[in-house]
Amino acid sequence: MRPGKNARVRAAAAALLRKARIAVTPAELEAMEVADMGLGDVRHVGLELIVYENNDRYCAKELILLPRQMCPEHRHPRLDGRNAGKQETFRCRYGEVYLYVAGEKTPKPKAKVPRRYKAFLSVGHEIVLGPGDQYTLPPDSLHWFQAGDKGAVVSEFSSTSTDENDLFTDPRIRRTGK
Amino acid sequence: MRPGKNARVRAAAAALLRKARIAVTPAELEAMEVADMGLGDVRHVGLELIVYENNDRYCAKELILLPRQMCPEHRHPRLDGRNAGKQETFRCRYGEVYLYVAGEKTPKPKAKVPRRYKAFLSVGHEIVLGPGDQYTLPPDSLHWFQAGDKGAVVSEFSSTSTDENDLFTDPRIRRTGK
Repeated sequence: MRPGKNARVRAAAAALLRKARIAVTPAELEAMEVADMGLGDVRHVGLELIVYENNDRYCAKELILLPRQMCPEHRHPRLDGRNAGKQETFRCRYGEVYLYVAGEKTPKPKAKVPRRYKAFLSVGHEIVLGPGDQYTLPPDSLHWFQAGDKGAVVSEFSSTSTDENDLFTDPRIRRTGK
Repeated sequence: MRPGKNARVRAAAAALLRKARIAVTPAELEAMEVADMGLGDVRHVGLELIVYENNDRYCAKELILLPRQMCPEHRHPRLDGRNAGKQETFRCRYGEVYLYVAGEKTPKPKAKVPRRYKAFLSVGHEIVLGPGDQYTLPPDSLHWFQAGDKGAVVSEFSSTSTDENDLFTDPRIRRTGK
């Protein structure tokens, strides 16, 4: 990563953590990942992540979404006979998150998606998460989400995370970790 | 549970969550567990818990400790050939927690333990956790912890939780869940 890359995005994410009163260490801020999904349009498509723990049994992260920033549609596929795919719980800590999963499409969804990304969204059943609300996704289920107008901080509790196995609906996306 | 039991402890725990700016739903507050470990001395030995998620892969809880409240020494034993025992990560969100694990005994520990409970503490290597600090315990390792003078809120990320399997050093303790 070249020095200063995404510096403004990082500063905005750090400010959201402060607003949410979530304490992180300087080392964690330094290691914060800005995932731009290879699209180079991180203010619209991407998210910021602090990984607290990721071992062979469980994982915990803080996800930071800038205002209207969107994590694009993807799923966590079955990895082998024992691992049916990553299972995850999103718990909103601050702000508002619009989460979309399989099911009846919500007629007037709250997400505002730039036209160029709409073709790569297939699920549209909306779940609105405010502070203290949470939702658990089954393994291997398509989902995408966007923060509301003031951004959001979301705790993710899950089985082991292996980002490189994620399958995105938009074929241009590259999720390579840091 | 008889109505109103532990009402003051519950109110104090709810107040700590508010101080820590951790949003929980009314239903979660209602379901909050006050674990008095069967000793009937919950202000000294016990803790309050909100279980966010506990499935067959991972678990996430918020632990609330009143000022100087102590979770007594215990371990999470191996359950079978596949499960080496619960593994857990404590992340301090608010206040200060003094965690004790195996290793060189810390000469002047910060915990203040009533004399009647001291005989049931065998590990004494101190780890001090302030907001944003965390520590991951290996499975089946003895540990105990106490909050500092203003109490503490600690996020616990772990493998599946099965409280009924916990083994406590003090034989009088009964951990029966709710």
